[in-house]
Amino acid sequence: MSGLEPHRLSLNTATVREKWSLAECIEGCLRHGIGGISPWRDKLQEMGVDKAARAIREAGLAVSGLCRGGWFTASGAVDRTVIDDNRRAVDEAAAIGAACLVMVVGGLAKDSRDLPGAWALVEEGLARTLDYAREAGVRIAIEPLHPMYAADRACVNTMRHALDICDRLGPGIGCAVDVYHVWWDNELEAQLQRAGKDRIMAFHICDWLVPTRDLLTDRGMMGDGVIDIPRLRGLAESNGFSGLNEVEIFSALDWWRRDADEVLATIVRRGRTAC
Amino acid sequence: MSGLEPHRLSLNTATVREKWSLAECIEGCLRHGIGGISPWRDKLQEMGVDKAARAIREAGLAVSGLCRGGWFTASGAVDRTVIDDNRRAVDEAAAIGAACLVMVVGGLAKDSRDLPGAWALVEEGLARTLDYAREAGVRIAIEPLHPMYAADRACVNTMRHALDICDRLGPGIGCAVDVYHVWWDNELEAQLQRAGKDRIMAFHICDWLVPTRDLLTDRGMMGDGVIDIPRLRGLAESNGFSGLNEVEIFSALDWWRRDADEVLATIVRRGRTAC
Repeated sequence: MSGLEPHRLSLNTATVREKWSLAECIEGCLRHGIGGISPWRDKLQEMGVDKAARAIREAGLAVSGLCRGGWFTASGAVDRTVIDDNRRAVDEAAAIGAACLVMVVGGLAKDSRDLPGAWALVEEGLARTLDYAREAGVRIAIEPLHPMYAADRACVNTMRHALDICDRLGPGIGCAVDVYHVWWDNELEAQLQRAGKDRIMAFHICDWLVPTRDLLTDRGMMGDGVIDIPRLRGLAESNGFSGLNEVEIFSALDWWRRDADEVLATIVRRGRTAC
Repeated sequence: MSGLEPHRLSLNTATVREKWSLAECIEGCLRHGIGGISPWRDKLQEMGVDKAARAIREAGLAVSGLCRGGWFTASGAVDRTVIDDNRRAVDEAAAIGAACLVMVVGGLAKDSRDLPGAWALVEEGLARTLDYAREAGVRIAIEPLHPMYAADRACVNTMRHALDICDRLGPGIGCAVDVYHVWWDNELEAQLQRAGKDRIMAFHICDWLVPTRDLLTDRGMMGDGVIDIPRLRGLAESNGFSGLNEVEIFSALDWWRRDADEVLATIVRRGRTAC
Protein backbone atom coordinates (compact mmCIF):
# COMPACT_ATOMS: atom_id res chain seq x y z
CA MET A 1 0.00 0.00 0.00
CA SER A 2 1.40 3.38 -1.00
CA GLY A 3 1.30 6.27 1.46
CA LEU A 4 -1.13 9.14 1.64
CA GLU A 5 -0.75 12.35 -0.31
CA PRO A 6 -1.78 15.38 1.76
CA HIS A 7 -5.05 15.94 -0.12
CA ARG A 8 -6.22 12.69 1.45
CA LEU A 9 -5.49 13.94 4.97
CA SER A 10 -7.69 16.00 7.26
CA LEU A 11 -6.52 18.09 10.19
CA ASN A 12 -8.36 17.58 13.45
CA THR A 13 -7.97 20.92 15.22
CA ALA A 14 -7.06 19.19 18.50
CA THR A 15 -3.68 18.37 16.94
CA VAL A 16 -2.60 22.01 17.07
CA ARG A 17 -5.08 23.25 19.63
CA GLU A 18 -2.55 25.03 21.82
CA LYS A 19 -1.23 27.12 18.92
CA TRP A 20 -3.90 27.83 16.33
CA SER A 21 -7.44 29.13 16.07
CA LEU A 22 -9.78 27.53 13.53
CA ALA A 23 -9.04 30.35 11.08
CA GLU A 24 -5.34 29.61 11.40
CA CYS A 25 -6.00 25.88 10.96
CA ILE A 26 -7.86 26.57 7.71
CA GLU A 27 -4.97 28.68 6.42
CA GLY A 28 -2.50 26.05 7.57
CA CYS A 29 -4.29 23.28 5.68
CA LEU A 30 -4.20 25.38 2.51
CA ARG A 31 -0.52 26.14 2.99
CA HIS A 32 0.37 22.47 3.41
CA GLY A 33 -2.03 21.03 0.84
CA ILE A 34 -4.10 19.15 3.42
CA GLY A 35 -7.47 18.30 1.95
CA GLY A 36 -9.81 18.57 4.89
CA ILE A 37 -10.46 19.73 8.39
CA SER A 38 -12.35 18.51 11.45
CA PRO A 39 -13.02 21.21 14.01
CA TRP A 40 -13.67 20.79 17.67
CA ARG A 41 -16.72 22.70 18.78
CA ASP A 42 -14.84 25.11 21.03
CA LYS A 43 -12.72 26.30 18.12
CA LEU A 44 -15.80 26.45 15.89
CA GLN A 45 -17.82 28.51 18.35
CA GLU A 46 -14.90 30.79 19.00
CA MET A 47 -14.77 31.68 15.32
CA GLY A 48 -18.53 31.71 14.89
CA VAL A 49 -20.31 28.91 13.05
CA ASP A 50 -21.45 30.90 10.01
CA LYS A 51 -18.14 32.61 9.52
CA ALA A 52 -16.30 29.30 9.90
CA ALA A 53 -18.62 27.54 7.47
CA ARG A 54 -17.98 30.21 4.87
CA ALA A 55 -14.22 30.19 5.39
CA ILE A 56 -14.01 26.40 5.10
CA ARG A 57 -16.14 26.43 1.95
CA GLU A 58 -14.11 29.20 0.36
CA ALA A 59 -10.90 27.35 1.18
CA GLY A 60 -12.27 24.29 -0.62
CA LEU A 61 -11.65 22.04 2.38
CA ALA A 62 -13.72 18.95 3.03
CA VAL A 63 -15.03 18.54 6.59
CA SER A 64 -14.33 15.02 7.76
CA GLY A 65 -16.25 15.45 11.00
CA LEU A 66 -17.29 17.67 13.87
CA CYS A 67 -15.89 16.83 17.29
CA ARG A 68 -17.97 16.22 19.29
CA GLY A 69 -21.40 15.44 20.64
CA GLY A 70 -22.23 12.93 23.34
CA TRP A 71 -21.49 12.97 27.09
CA PHE A 72 -24.93 11.46 27.64
CA THR A 73 -24.04 10.15 31.10
CA ALA A 74 -22.75 13.39 32.58
CA SER A 75 -25.69 14.17 34.84
CA GLY A 76 -26.92 10.60 35.38
CA ALA A 77 -29.97 11.13 33.17
CA VAL A 78 -30.55 12.05 29.54
CA ASP A 79 -32.02 15.41 30.44
CA ARG A 80 -32.96 18.51 28.51
CA THR A 81 -29.51 20.05 28.88
CA VAL A 82 -27.69 17.15 27.27
CA ILE A 83 -30.24 16.73 24.49
CA ASP A 84 -30.24 20.44 23.67
CA ASP A 85 -26.48 20.49 23.53
CA ASN A 86 -26.43 17.53 21.17
CA ARG A 87 -29.04 19.15 18.95
CA ARG A 88 -26.86 22.24 18.74
CA ALA A 89 -23.98 20.00 17.76
CA VAL A 90 -26.13 18.51 14.99
CA ASP A 91 -27.00 22.00 13.77
CA GLU A 92 -23.34 22.97 13.76
CA ALA A 93 -22.39 19.82 11.86
CA ALA A 94 -25.05 20.62 9.27
CA ALA A 95 -23.87 24.22 8.99
CA ILE A 96 -20.31 23.25 8.15
CA GLY A 97 -21.25 20.26 6.01
CA ALA A 98 -19.46 17.75 8.25
CA ALA A 99 -19.28 14.17 7.01
CA CYS A 100 -20.44 13.14 10.47
CA LEU A 101 -20.95 14.32 14.02
CA VAL A 102 -18.49 12.37 16.17
CA MET A 103 -19.92 11.12 19.46
CA VAL A 104 -17.84 10.69 22.58
CA VAL A 105 -20.61 9.05 24.51
CA GLY A 106 -19.59 9.59 28.13
CA GLY A 107 -18.34 7.31 30.88
CA LEU A 108 -19.82 6.42 34.23
CA ALA A 109 -22.10 9.01 35.78
CA LYS A 110 -20.57 10.97 38.66
CA ASP A 111 -20.06 8.82 41.78
CA SER A 112 -21.53 5.82 39.98
CA ARG A 113 -20.19 2.31 39.38
CA ASP A 114 -23.21 1.34 37.31
CA LEU A 115 -21.72 0.51 33.94
CA PRO A 116 -24.81 -1.22 32.51
CA GLY A 117 -26.75 1.87 33.57
CA ALA A 118 -24.30 4.07 31.67
CA TRP A 119 -24.67 1.91 28.55
CA ALA A 120 -28.45 2.40 28.73
CA LEU A 121 -28.14 6.18 29.10
CA VAL A 122 -25.82 6.31 26.11
CA GLU A 123 -28.17 4.37 23.92
CA GLU A 124 -31.12 6.52 24.93
CA GLY A 125 -29.18 9.69 24.24
CA LEU A 126 -27.98 8.46 20.87
CA ALA A 127 -31.49 7.41 19.86
CA ARG A 128 -32.97 10.78 20.73
CA THR A 129 -30.19 12.69 19.00
CA LEU A 130 -30.44 10.48 15.94
CA ASP A 131 -34.08 11.38 15.38
CA TYR A 132 -33.10 15.02 15.21
CA ALA A 133 -29.97 14.32 13.12
CA ARG A 134 -31.90 12.41 10.50
CA GLU A 135 -34.17 15.38 9.91
CA ALA A 136 -31.10 17.61 9.63
CA GLY A 137 -29.37 15.20 7.25
CA VAL A 138 -26.42 14.75 9.63
CA ARG A 139 -24.78 11.38 10.13
CA ILE A 140 -23.96 10.31 13.68
CA ALA A 141 -20.66 8.50 14.28
CA ILE A 142 -20.09 6.71 17.57
CA GLU A 143 -16.39 6.80 18.38
CA PRO A 144 -15.48 3.74 20.42
CA LEU A 145 -12.76 5.01 22.75
CA HIS A 146 -9.91 2.94 24.12
CA PRO A 147 -11.06 0.93 27.16
CA MET A 148 -8.79 3.00 29.40
CA TYR A 149 -11.37 5.79 29.01
CA ALA A 150 -14.38 3.68 29.99
CA ALA A 151 -14.78 5.33 33.39
CA ASP A 152 -14.40 8.97 32.52
CA ARG A 153 -14.92 9.54 28.79
CA ALA A 154 -16.75 6.83 26.91
CA CYS A 155 -18.20 3.50 27.98
CA VAL A 156 -18.47 2.22 24.40
CA ASN A 157 -15.01 0.79 23.81
CA THR A 158 -15.16 -1.61 20.91
CA MET A 159 -16.40 -1.60 17.35
CA ARG A 160 -18.57 -4.58 18.26
CA HIS A 161 -20.40 -2.68 20.99
CA ALA A 162 -20.80 0.40 18.79
CA LEU A 163 -22.19 -1.67 15.92
CA ASP A 164 -24.55 -3.54 18.23
CA ILE A 165 -25.99 -0.12 19.10
CA CYS A 166 -26.08 0.89 15.43
CA ASP A 167 -27.92 -2.31 14.55
CA ARG A 168 -30.59 -1.47 17.09
CA LEU A 169 -30.94 2.20 16.10
CA GLY A 170 -31.07 1.80 12.34
CA PRO A 171 -29.87 4.01 9.49
CA GLY A 172 -27.95 7.25 9.90
CA ILE A 173 -25.61 6.07 12.65
CA GLY A 174 -22.21 4.43 12.32
CA CYS A 175 -18.69 4.59 13.71
CA ALA A 176 -15.69 6.88 13.80
CA VAL A 177 -12.72 4.51 13.70
CA ASP A 178 -9.65 5.92 15.44
CA VAL A 179 -6.66 3.61 15.18
CA TYR A 180 -5.46 4.73 18.62
CA HIS A 181 -8.60 3.37 20.24
CA VAL A 182 -9.10 0.14 18.32
CA TRP A 183 -5.72 -1.05 17.03
CA TRP A 184 -5.36 -3.74 19.74
CA ASP A 185 -8.71 -5.44 19.08
CA ASN A 186 -8.47 -8.88 17.53
CA GLU A 187 -12.04 -8.44 16.31
CA LEU A 188 -11.26 -5.27 14.38
CA GLU A 189 -11.03 -6.88 10.96
CA ALA A 190 -14.34 -8.70 11.36
CA GLN A 191 -16.09 -5.67 12.78
CA LEU A 192 -14.90 -3.35 9.99
CA GLN A 193 -16.34 -5.85 7.55
CA ARG A 194 -19.58 -5.89 9.52
CA ALA A 195 -19.66 -2.08 9.58
CA GLY A 196 -19.25 -1.74 5.83
CA LYS A 197 -19.10 1.37 3.71
CA ASP A 198 -22.13 3.13 5.16
CA ARG A 199 -21.07 2.76 8.79
CA ILE A 200 -17.36 3.53 8.61
CA MET A 201 -17.97 7.25 8.73
CA ALA A 202 -14.55 8.51 9.79
CA PHE A 203 -11.01 7.18 10.04
CA HIS A 204 -8.64 8.84 12.52
CA ILE A 205 -4.92 8.32 12.65
CA CYS A 206 -2.09 8.88 15.13
CA ASP A 207 0.12 6.34 16.91
CA TRP A 208 0.47 4.37 20.16
CA LEU A 209 3.74 5.16 21.91
CA VAL A 210 5.71 2.66 24.00
CA PRO A 211 5.92 3.64 26.75
CA THR A 212 2.78 5.78 27.02
CA ARG A 213 3.40 8.30 29.78
CA ASP A 214 -0.09 9.71 30.18
CA LEU A 215 -3.47 8.13 29.56
CA LEU A 216 -4.92 11.12 27.73
CA THR A 217 -2.29 13.36 26.19
CA ASP A 218 0.59 11.17 25.06
CA ARG A 219 -0.47 10.08 21.61
CA GLY A 220 2.21 9.78 18.97
CA MET A 221 2.79 11.07 15.46
CA MET A 222 2.17 8.44 12.80
CA GLY A 223 5.27 6.31 12.52
CA ASP A 224 6.56 6.95 16.04
CA GLY A 225 4.61 4.12 17.65
CA VAL A 226 3.54 0.53 17.17
CA ILE A 227 0.30 0.76 15.19
CA ASP A 228 0.40 -0.79 11.75
CA ILE A 229 -1.49 2.12 10.18
CA PRO A 230 -1.20 0.93 6.56
CA ARG A 231 -2.77 -2.40 7.52
CA LEU A 232 -5.67 -0.80 9.39
CA ARG A 233 -6.26 1.77 6.66
CA GLY A 234 -6.29 -1.08 4.17
CA LEU A 235 -8.98 -2.85 6.19
CA ALA A 236 -11.13 0.30 6.28
CA GLU A 237 -10.70 0.94 2.56
CA SER A 238 -11.26 -2.65 1.50
CA ASN A 239 -14.58 -2.38 3.30
CA GLY A 240 -15.58 0.70 1.34
CA PHE A 241 -14.27 3.66 3.29
CA SER A 242 -13.15 6.39 0.92
CA GLY A 243 -13.12 9.44 3.18
CA LEU A 244 -10.21 11.46 4.47
CA ASN A 245 -7.62 10.25 6.97
CA GLU A 246 -8.10 12.56 9.92
CA VAL A 247 -5.03 13.29 12.02
CA GLU A 248 -5.89 13.71 15.70
CA ILE A 249 -2.90 13.84 18.07
CA PHE A 250 -3.30 14.68 21.75
CA SER A 251 0.26 15.36 22.81
CA ALA A 252 0.81 17.73 25.70
CA LEU A 253 4.36 16.51 26.12
CA ASP A 254 5.51 16.90 22.54
CA TRP A 255 3.50 18.03 19.49
CA TRP A 256 1.29 20.58 21.23
CA ARG A 257 4.45 22.41 22.24
CA ARG A 258 5.89 22.67 18.75
CA ASP A 259 5.41 25.25 16.06
CA ALA A 260 2.17 24.32 14.29
CA ASP A 261 3.64 24.64 10.81
CA GLU A 262 6.32 22.17 11.83
CA VAL A 263 3.56 19.83 13.04
CA LEU A 264 1.68 20.05 9.75
CA ALA A 265 4.85 19.55 7.72
CA THR A 266 5.58 16.44 9.76
CA ILE A 267 2.05 15.17 9.25
CA VAL A 268 2.39 15.59 5.49
CA ARG A 269 5.71 13.75 5.50
CA ARG A 270 4.48 10.93 7.69
CA GLY A 271 1.30 10.60 5.66
CA ARG A 272 3.53 9.62 2.77
CA THR A 273 5.93 7.38 4.68
CA ALA A 274 4.08 5.86 7.64
CA CYS A 275 0.43 5.55 6.65
CA MET B 1 -24.32 -10.07 47.91
CA SER B 2 -22.52 -10.05 51.22
CA GLY B 3 -18.82 -9.24 51.42
CA LEU B 4 -15.88 -11.58 51.60
CA GLU B 5 -14.50 -12.98 54.83
CA PRO B 6 -10.69 -13.14 54.76
CA HIS B 7 -10.54 -16.92 54.41
CA ARG B 8 -11.99 -16.39 50.92
CA LEU B 9 -9.19 -14.00 49.95
CA SER B 10 -5.77 -14.77 48.55
CA LEU B 11 -2.73 -12.51 48.66
CA ASN B 12 -0.88 -12.01 45.41
CA THR B 13 2.66 -11.26 46.49
CA ALA B 14 2.91 -8.33 44.05
CA THR B 15 0.62 -6.39 46.38
CA VAL B 16 3.35 -6.09 49.01
CA ARG B 17 6.32 -6.79 46.82
CA GLU B 18 8.39 -3.82 47.96
CA LYS B 19 8.14 -4.82 51.63
CA TRP B 20 7.88 -8.58 52.10
CA SER B 21 9.57 -11.77 51.01
CA LEU B 22 7.42 -14.83 50.31
CA ALA B 23 8.12 -16.13 53.81
CA GLU B 24 6.85 -12.87 55.27
CA CYS B 25 3.80 -13.01 53.00
CA ILE B 26 2.97 -16.48 54.30
CA GLU B 27 3.26 -15.32 57.90
CA GLY B 28 1.23 -12.21 57.07
CA CYS B 29 -1.60 -14.25 55.60
CA LEU B 30 -1.73 -16.38 58.75
CA ARG B 31 -1.70 -13.29 60.98
CA HIS B 32 -4.62 -11.69 59.09
CA GLY B 33 -6.65 -14.84 58.44
CA ILE B 34 -6.23 -14.67 54.67
CA GLY B 35 -6.93 -18.07 53.16
CA GLY B 36 -4.54 -18.29 50.27
CA ILE B 37 -1.52 -16.98 48.48
CA SER B 38 -0.35 -16.50 44.91
CA PRO B 39 3.39 -16.02 44.56
CA TRP B 40 5.25 -14.36 41.78
CA ARG B 41 8.08 -16.48 40.50
CA ASP B 42 10.84 -14.09 41.59
CA LYS B 43 9.68 -14.32 45.21
CA LEU B 44 9.26 -18.08 44.90
CA GLN B 45 12.74 -18.63 43.49
CA GLU B 46 14.27 -16.32 46.06
CA MET B 47 12.87 -18.51 48.84
CA GLY B 48 13.52 -21.76 47.00
CA VAL B 49 10.67 -23.76 45.51
CA ASP B 50 10.82 -26.77 47.83
CA LYS B 51 11.15 -24.71 50.97
CA ALA B 52 8.30 -22.45 49.85
CA ALA B 53 6.05 -25.37 48.98
CA ARG B 54 6.61 -26.84 52.44
CA ALA B 55 6.01 -23.54 54.22
CA ILE B 56 2.79 -22.86 52.32
CA ARG B 57 1.54 -26.39 53.02
CA GLU B 58 2.39 -26.18 56.72
CA ALA B 59 0.64 -22.82 56.93
CA GLY B 60 -2.49 -24.41 55.49
CA LEU B 61 -2.75 -21.83 52.75
CA ALA B 62 -4.38 -22.55 49.41
CA VAL B 63 -2.42 -21.47 46.32
CA SER B 64 -4.74 -19.60 43.96
CA GLY B 65 -2.13 -19.34 41.22
CA LEU B 66 1.46 -18.90 40.22
CA CYS B 67 2.41 -15.64 38.49
CA ARG B 68 3.53 -16.04 35.79
CA GLY B 69 4.42 -17.86 32.60
CA GLY B 70 4.13 -16.52 29.09
CA TRP B 71 6.07 -13.78 27.29
CA PHE B 72 5.97 -15.91 24.17
CA THR B 73 6.66 -13.00 21.86
CA ALA B 74 9.78 -11.68 23.57
CA SER B 75 12.33 -12.87 21.04
CA GLY B 76 10.09 -12.90 17.96
CA ALA B 77 9.98 -16.70 17.88
CA VAL B 78 8.83 -19.43 20.25
CA ASP B 79 12.32 -20.67 20.84
CA ARG B 80 13.93 -23.07 23.25
CA THR B 81 14.58 -20.39 25.86
CA VAL B 82 10.95 -19.34 26.15
CA ILE B 83 9.65 -22.93 26.13
CA ASP B 84 12.14 -24.04 28.76
CA ASP B 85 11.23 -21.13 30.99
CA ASN B 86 7.54 -21.94 30.68
CA ARG B 87 8.20 -25.60 31.49
CA ARG B 88 10.05 -24.52 34.62
CA ALA B 89 7.04 -22.40 35.52
CA VAL B 90 4.81 -25.45 35.10
CA ASP B 91 7.10 -27.46 37.35
CA GLU B 92 7.02 -24.73 39.98
CA ALA B 93 3.23 -24.50 39.80
CA ALA B 94 3.04 -28.27 40.32
CA ALA B 95 5.48 -28.13 43.24
CA ILE B 96 3.42 -25.59 45.17
CA GLY B 97 0.05 -27.04 44.19
CA ALA B 98 -1.11 -23.91 42.40
CA ALA B 99 -4.70 -23.84 41.16
CA CYS B 100 -3.30 -22.59 37.86
CA LEU B 101 -0.26 -21.15 36.15
CA VAL B 102 -1.18 -17.61 35.11
CA MET B 103 -0.02 -16.63 31.65
CA VAL B 104 0.91 -13.10 30.69
CA VAL B 105 1.31 -13.90 27.05
CA GLY B 106 3.54 -11.07 25.79
CA GLY B 107 2.95 -8.08 23.52
CA LEU B 108 4.47 -7.17 20.19
CA ALA B 109 7.91 -8.54 19.50
CA LYS B 110 10.74 -6.01 19.76
CA ASP B 111 10.63 -3.41 16.95
CA SER B 112 7.58 -5.10 15.47
CA ARG B 113 4.15 -3.77 14.56
CA ASP B 114 2.90 -7.22 13.53
CA LEU B 115 0.01 -7.84 15.89
CA PRO B 116 -1.45 -10.83 14.02
CA GLY B 117 2.05 -12.29 14.09
CA ALA B 118 2.17 -11.82 17.86
CA TRP B 119 -1.19 -13.55 18.25
CA ALA B 120 0.18 -16.52 16.32
CA LEU B 121 3.34 -16.73 18.46
CA VAL B 122 1.23 -16.64 21.61
CA GLU B 123 -1.01 -19.44 20.47
CA GLU B 124 1.96 -21.57 19.47
CA GLY B 125 3.65 -20.97 22.81
CA LEU B 126 0.50 -21.76 24.76
CA ALA B 127 -0.10 -24.96 22.79
CA ARG B 128 3.43 -26.22 23.39
CA THR B 129 3.34 -25.33 27.09
CA LEU B 130 -0.06 -26.91 27.46
CA ASP B 131 1.18 -30.31 26.30
CA TYR B 132 3.74 -30.27 29.06
CA ALA B 133 1.31 -28.86 31.64
CA ARG B 134 -1.25 -31.58 31.00
CA GLU B 135 1.33 -34.25 31.82
CA ALA B 136 2.23 -32.35 34.99
CA GLY B 137 -1.41 -31.93 35.98
CA VAL B 138 -1.13 -28.13 35.95
CA ARG B 139 -3.92 -25.95 34.61
CA ILE B 140 -2.95 -23.05 32.33
CA ALA B 141 -4.83 -19.76 32.79
CA ILE B 142 -4.56 -17.07 30.11
CA GLU B 143 -4.88 -13.68 31.75
CA PRO B 144 -6.40 -11.25 29.28
CA LEU B 145 -4.70 -7.96 30.15
CA HIS B 146 -6.24 -4.53 29.72
CA PRO B 147 -5.91 -3.34 26.11
CA MET B 148 -3.53 -0.59 27.23
CA TYR B 149 -0.92 -3.36 27.65
CA ALA B 150 -1.36 -4.82 24.16
CA ALA B 151 1.94 -3.46 22.87
CA ASP B 152 4.28 -4.29 25.70
CA ARG B 153 2.79 -6.97 27.97
CA ALA B 154 -0.02 -9.05 26.50
CA CYS B 155 -1.73 -9.00 23.13
CA VAL B 156 -4.68 -11.05 24.37
CA ASN B 157 -6.94 -8.39 25.82
CA THR B 158 -10.45 -9.77 26.07
CA MET B 159 -12.14 -12.83 27.50
CA ARG B 160 -13.52 -13.50 24.02
CA HIS B 161 -10.05 -13.70 22.48
CA ALA B 162 -8.75 -15.84 25.34
CA LEU B 163 -11.67 -18.24 25.08
CA ASP B 164 -11.31 -18.47 21.31
CA ILE B 165 -7.79 -19.70 21.96
CA CYS B 166 -9.00 -22.08 24.67
CA ASP B 167 -11.62 -23.50 22.31
CA ARG B 168 -8.92 -24.29 19.80
CA LEU B 169 -6.46 -25.78 22.31
CA GLY B 170 -8.85 -27.99 24.24
CA PRO B 171 -8.98 -29.07 27.89
CA GLY B 172 -6.62 -27.86 30.60
CA ILE B 173 -6.54 -24.21 29.57
CA GLY B 174 -8.81 -21.41 30.73
CA CYS B 175 -8.74 -17.82 31.98
CA ALA B 176 -7.54 -15.78 34.92
CA VAL B 177 -10.17 -13.07 35.26
CA ASP B 178 -8.79 -9.86 36.76
CA VAL B 179 -11.45 -7.21 37.24
CA TYR B 180 -8.91 -4.47 36.52
CA HIS B 181 -8.37 -5.80 33.02
CA VAL B 182 -11.90 -6.74 32.00
CA TRP B 183 -14.36 -4.58 33.96
CA TRP B 184 -15.06 -2.26 31.01
CA ASP B 185 -16.02 -5.02 28.56
CA ASN B 186 -19.68 -5.12 27.61
CA GLU B 187 -19.20 -8.74 26.61
CA LEU B 188 -17.93 -9.80 30.02
CA GLU B 189 -21.18 -11.32 31.26
CA ALA B 190 -21.64 -13.39 28.11
CA GLN B 191 -18.02 -14.50 28.04
CA LEU B 192 -18.01 -15.58 31.70
CA GLN B 193 -21.02 -17.69 30.91
CA ARG B 194 -19.21 -19.10 27.90
CA ALA B 195 -16.13 -19.82 30.03
CA GLY B 196 -18.04 -21.74 32.69
CA LYS B 197 -16.77 -23.36 35.83
CA ASP B 198 -13.85 -25.24 34.29
CA ARG B 199 -12.36 -22.25 32.50
CA ILE B 200 -12.73 -19.53 35.13
CA MET B 201 -9.54 -20.59 36.86
CA ALA B 202 -8.75 -17.47 38.89
CA PHE B 203 -10.47 -14.27 39.94
CA HIS B 204 -8.30 -11.25 40.73
CA ILE B 205 -9.51 -8.10 42.44
CA CYS B 206 -8.34 -4.51 42.88
CA ASP B 207 -9.89 -1.28 41.58
CA TRP B 208 -9.70 1.22 38.69
CA LEU B 209 -8.85 4.69 39.94
CA VAL B 210 -10.13 7.91 38.35
CA PRO B 211 -7.85 9.50 37.39
CA THR B 212 -5.28 6.77 36.75
CA ARG B 213 -1.87 8.42 36.89
CA ASP B 214 0.27 5.62 35.51
CA LEU B 215 -0.57 2.85 33.09
CA LEU B 216 1.14 0.12 35.09
CA THR B 217 1.46 0.93 38.76
CA ASP B 218 -1.58 2.95 39.80
CA ARG B 219 -4.13 0.29 40.63
CA GLY B 220 -6.48 0.96 43.50
CA MET B 221 -7.52 -0.82 46.68
CA MET B 222 -10.96 -2.39 46.39
CA GLY B 223 -13.55 0.31 47.06
CA ASP B 224 -11.36 3.24 46.04
CA GLY B 225 -12.27 3.11 42.36
CA VAL B 226 -15.15 2.61 39.99
CA ILE B 227 -15.32 -1.16 39.48
CA ASP B 228 -18.52 -2.80 40.69
CA ILE B 229 -16.64 -5.71 42.25
CA PRO B 230 -19.67 -7.38 43.87
CA ARG B 231 -21.43 -7.51 40.51
CA LEU B 232 -18.44 -9.00 38.71
CA ARG B 233 -17.78 -11.49 41.48
CA GLY B 234 -21.45 -12.47 41.29
CA LEU B 235 -21.08 -13.13 37.57
CA ALA B 236 -18.03 -15.34 38.13
CA GLU B 237 -19.71 -17.26 40.95
CA SER B 238 -23.03 -17.70 39.18
CA ASN B 239 -21.03 -19.37 36.42
CA GLY B 240 -19.46 -21.81 38.83
CA PHE B 241 -16.30 -20.15 40.10
CA SER B 242 -15.71 -21.11 43.71
CA GLY B 243 -12.03 -20.31 44.16
CA LEU B 244 -10.38 -17.60 46.18
CA ASN B 245 -10.52 -13.89 45.44
CA GLU B 246 -6.92 -12.97 44.76
CA VAL B 247 -5.88 -9.44 45.64
CA GLU B 248 -3.29 -8.06 43.21
CA ILE B 249 -2.55 -4.34 43.53
CA PHE B 250 0.27 -2.67 41.60
CA SER B 251 0.58 0.66 43.35
CA ALA B 252 3.96 2.35 43.30
CA LEU B 253 2.40 5.65 44.32
CA ASP B 254 0.46 4.43 47.34
CA TRP B 255 0.12 0.87 48.68
CA TRP B 256 3.63 -0.33 47.87
CA ARG B 257 4.94 2.45 50.10
CA ARG B 258 2.87 1.52 53.13
CA ASP B 259 3.53 -0.85 55.97
CA ALA B 260 2.53 -4.29 54.69
CA ASP B 261 0.50 -5.18 57.76
CA GLU B 262 -1.52 -2.02 57.22
CA VAL B 263 -2.08 -3.11 53.60
CA LEU B 264 -3.30 -6.55 54.67
CA ALA B 265 -5.57 -5.12 57.35
CA THR B 266 -7.08 -2.81 54.74
CA ILE B 267 -7.56 -5.71 52.33
CA VAL B 268 -9.41 -7.68 55.00
CA ARG B 269 -11.64 -4.71 55.80
CA ARG B 270 -12.37 -3.93 52.17
CA GLY B 271 -13.05 -7.57 51.41
CA ARG B 272 -15.96 -7.29 53.83
CA THR B 273 -17.23 -3.89 52.71
CA ALA B 274 -16.36 -3.40 49.04
CA CYS B 275 -16.32 -6.83 47.42
